[in-house]
Amino acid sequence: MAGTKFAYVRNFELPDPLLPDTYLVCRLDGHSFHRFSDEHGFAKPNDERALQLMDHAAKSVMIEFKDIMLAFGESDEFSFLFRKSTNLYNRRQSKILTTLTSYFTSCYVLYWSQYFPDTPLRYPPSFDGRIVVYPTERAIRDYFAWRQADTHINNLYNTTFWALIQKGGQTATEAHTTLKGTVSATKHEMLFSRFGINYNEISQRFKKGSVIVREIVAPESSDKGEKLEPPFDPFHQQCSKAKKNKLETTVEVLHCDIIGEEFWLPRRHLLEN
Amino acid sequence: MAGTKFAYVRNFELPDPLLPDTYLVCRLDGHSFHRFSDEHGFAKPNDERALQLMDHAAKSVMIEFKDIMLAFGESDEFSFLFRKSTNLYNRRQSKILTTLTSYFTSCYVLYWSQYFPDTPLRYPPSFDGRIVVYPTERAIRDYFAWRQADTHINNLYNTTFWALIQKGGQTATEAHTTLKGTVSATKHEMLFSRFGINYNEISQRFKKGSVIVREIVAPESSDKGEKLEPPFDPFHQQCSKAKKNKLETTVEVLHCDIIGEEFWLPRRHLLEN
Amino acid sequence: MAGTKFAYVRNFELPDPLLPDTYLVCRLDGHSFHRFSDEHGFAKPNDERALQLMDHAAKSVMIEFKDIMLAFGESDEFSFLFRKSTNLYNRRQSKILTTLTSYFTSCYVLYWSQYFPDTPLRYPPSFDGRIVVYPTERAIRDYFAWRQADTHINNLYNTTFWALIQKGGQTATEAHTTLKGTVSATKHEMLFSRFGINYNEISQRFKKGSVIVREIVAPESSDKGEKLEPPFDPFHQQCSKAKKNKLETTVEVLHCDIIGEEFWLPRRHLLEN
Amino acid sequence: MAGTKFAYVRNFELPDPLLPDTYLVCRLDGHSFHRFSDEHGFAKPNDERALQLMDHAAKSVMIEFKDIMLAFGESDEFSFLFRKSTNLYNRRQSKILTTLTSYFTSCYVLYWSQYFPDTPLRYPPSFDGRIVVYPTERAIRDYFAWRQADTHINNLYNTTFWALIQKGGQTATEAHTTLKGTVSATKHEMLFSRFGINYNEISQRFKKGSVIVREIVAPESSDKGEKLEPPFDPFHQQCSKAKKNKLETTVEVLHCDIIGEEFWLPRRHLLEN
Repeated sequence: MAGTKFAYVRNFELPDPLLPDTYLVCRLDGHSFHRFSDEHGFAKPNDERALQLMDHAAKSVMIEFKDIMLAFGESDEFSFLFRKSTNLYNRRQSKILTTLTSYFTSCYVLYWSQYFPDTPLRYPPSFDGRIVVYPTERAIRDYFAWRQADTHINNLYNTTFWALIQKGGQTATEAHTTLKGTVSATKHEMLFSRFGINYNEISQRFKKGSVIVREIVAPESSDKGEKLEPPFDPFHQQCSKAKKNKLETTVEVLHCDIIGEEFWLPRRHLLEN
Repeated sequence: MAGTKFAYVRNFELPDPLLPDTYLVCRLDGHSFHRFSDEHGFAKPNDERALQLMDHAAKSVMIEFKDIMLAFGESDEFSFLFRKSTNLYNRRQSKILTTLTSYFTSCYVLYWSQYFPDTPLRYPPSFDGRIVVYPTERAIRDYFAWRQADTHINNLYNTTFWALIQKGGQTATEAHTTLKGTVSATKHEMLFSRFGINYNEISQRFKKGSVIVREIVAPESSDKGEKLEPPFDPFHQQCSKAKKNKLETTVEVLHCDIIGEEFWLPRRHLLEN
Repeated sequence: MAGTKFAYVRNFELPDPLLPDTYLVCRLDGHSFHRFSDEHGFAKPNDERALQLMDHAAKSVMIEFKDIMLAFGESDEFSFLFRKSTNLYNRRQSKILTTLTSYFTSCYVLYWSQYFPDTPLRYPPSFDGRIVVYPTERAIRDYFAWRQADTHINNLYNTTFWALIQKGGQTATEAHTTLKGTVSATKHEMLFSRFGINYNEISQRFKKGSVIVREIVAPESSDKGEKLEPPFDPFHQQCSKAKKNKLETTVEVLHCDIIGEEFWLPRRHLLEN
Repeated sequence: MAGTKFAYVRNFELPDPLLPDTYLVCRLDGHSFHRFSDEHGFAKPNDERALQLMDHAAKSVMIEFKDIMLAFGESDEFSFLFRKSTNLYNRRQSKILTTLTSYFTSCYVLYWSQYFPDTPLRYPPSFDGRIVVYPTERAIRDYFAWRQADTHINNLYNTTFWALIQKGGQTATEAHTTLKGTVSATKHEMLFSRFGINYNEISQRFKKGSVIVREIVAPESSDKGEKLEPPFDPFHQQCSKAKKNKLETTVEVLHCDIIGEEFWLPRRHLLEN
């Protein structure tokens, strides 16, 4: 940018670094996706194609940004976890946040036709995003547990709600009334006794959401996959040779429980540096 | 989002309001567009189609976000000016910044094929963004003057640089050497005497960039166009009737000077509330 | 600070610059001064000595910090206005805020015995502070009007409240009940008819608060007083000679209206650069 | 504050919460204390009285703010560590920072005459302050190690420097030249061979600085001392009964090593919630 007499306006650009050595979670949400899903004929309560498109975009983000260790998605939202030691764009908040949001959006539009070959986009879909800083492993574990618990609660409600409408002939208002105040067991029972739906047999994708995880590839198969930088060491930041010891990684899409210990125990690398 | 025992993690989401009653400028920049333009065969020094696509995306943004009064674009960047009194998303920084960046990106990908019908996207293009807060009219005038002066300087350089290569047979390194230390007049002369190019006759779009302005429609033609809210008055924020007196506006794309007074004098509404 | 292996912890110190070219208002408030005034026998509703001590501390602050143009105080609070162009401590928020708060506190304790020669401090008084950024003259005018209107409302209430107790023999609870819902005129009438107090004759200091203003000294008397730097010019920041043209200023304590135009019209230098 | 038409100016006061569940370190530094120590005749290289006054002020701060677990001071600076779970003033940065800075300053001035009975304050001393957020135990350990290593390095230098001047008859410039490039062992040797000073016998206060620590009082002696709130539990924030189980604490001034493990091992409560 040129050194004109006007260039002093750059002085108004203030720094926005994120606190070092903390986990960063970037969460994206579809903007007005209630309307968007209606306009584009999404199946209810879950549209498999739309969810696969979200996963595709999120996986692309993780392949592009190597410091993202884990992502979790449900419905029209996705959360991305950066490792504590990431120094992406010198941890500048706006830069990280917009680049990631923009890339995800770009993927969503570009890959749309792979999942909706007969449904052209009627208008540009968009997403908003935010970065939340978490200082502890406990908080990260609880963050992802929060999102997955939310997925379960929403999906059980929505599955029953749409069964009442699609199979029970109720209006939306009637269905909400039917469900008001019901606990989880009542909804399970309602699904089974009235509509023959065994909730436990519903797709894991719908019940658990999408877990996209960066896995470390065993050394012997090290000739392909993504590279992961070794742990950050505050005392040896200059050590450029360390960069050559990157571990190979791949990015996998799962639909499993991430609230309990089983997911986390064999994957210490997700939370350690 | 569900009220589970994990929901306390929301406490880590900190507020990020922007200072009230200040101009907001959101500037987007193409991410690694040097490579992107190479991979997609952009004409040098300027690709008319690529610039029109940028304008299309920017104009769409202004139609979507009514509080944007002016935008200026050149090359792979665009700056958007929100009026001082905007209360979009309660002036939450991340929300404004990401929604706008995402929507622009979405338009860019969605409308790509209209401008590059024979060039499919080889990978997802993306943009980064930032919001800068400006407290005064003077700073806003100087901000846009800064960007347009930059456009001029870059375009004159690039036009001569590519003439030396495309018509003069120089390599990139040779062309940079030829241009090193030359002033503006020397480049004009070089273009004219060696390549028969009269810089003054080059497209205004390339020399001035793109100015997208929200114009007020005269009352008699008030049955179409966008609506502009009346000036913000801190003492009468509650006055809901005022909202009904919105002025009609349209969004126009120009390629004119915005450094001098002529652009601004008849358009007081751009900087006043 | 030494370059030990531990020095990396400085990376956690994040920058906190305040937006350039905006007015800064630093407001200090006494911490638990209700108790403090009781413990040190302050006269009610206003203690002349305590207010003079506050003025002394505030005036000292303005003599120390040349970029403060105006201060307004009432009760246990004081607001300080920095000129828009101040570059004190490179506009680092914490540095400006703490240095000013600390200096004010230090003056308050150091000069205490001048105003309370027979009342030793029983414990250390303290103040909290905050900086608020204002982008416009209008907001600054309204800020100081807000504080002075508050002074008037509080003082009329407190004057009547304490007359009811001290002269009317009411308890605090009874006095609050008597005053509940009364408008200004009723309180004036109550003071006059029941206690023979003409509110208009009460000290200006109590009714208007303390206005400490930096006045420009006419050139002929330029051999004393404080120096004011000339207006900030974004295009000539490097011009070191300009610094020699400082205007001489003095700091005056007034008890006058600052809501109307009369105060501000002859003092354009307070709000201009 | 009154609800006048001007009260909208409060909208410019933006929130400034500090990230939850992180350690807060507030560091105060004397403002222009080089001059202050000269003007008030401080002994060189260390003035016992001045250091005791600093300790007195810091200890008072810790008695006032129960969530401060540890403080470390040297020369004219003091660092205070708040426990991770502190919710003091809802973790509002300016409020915590200014209240602490003001209280420390107030103590310094108020207790001055106890340590300098024959030296009246010639002008008001002041301190600046900042809060730094640290996410991990490691960073806190390293922060305090950094400050104590700094104390050691500075004190060895200053002790030798002043010996060269006071006993060796050198000027300040000569002394700096003599010390230029010398390592630690050389300074020890210089002190001993030229001035008969065994550095190891110098006061621990000078070599180690002041460590003020909140110690937990054993239950049987629980009838005096400060109270410490029990660990913060994110899932039981509402549990008001917990507040009654406060542990008793006292505040002790030590001059010991805090870089090694011996200090920290028996004091897990300093870093745990």
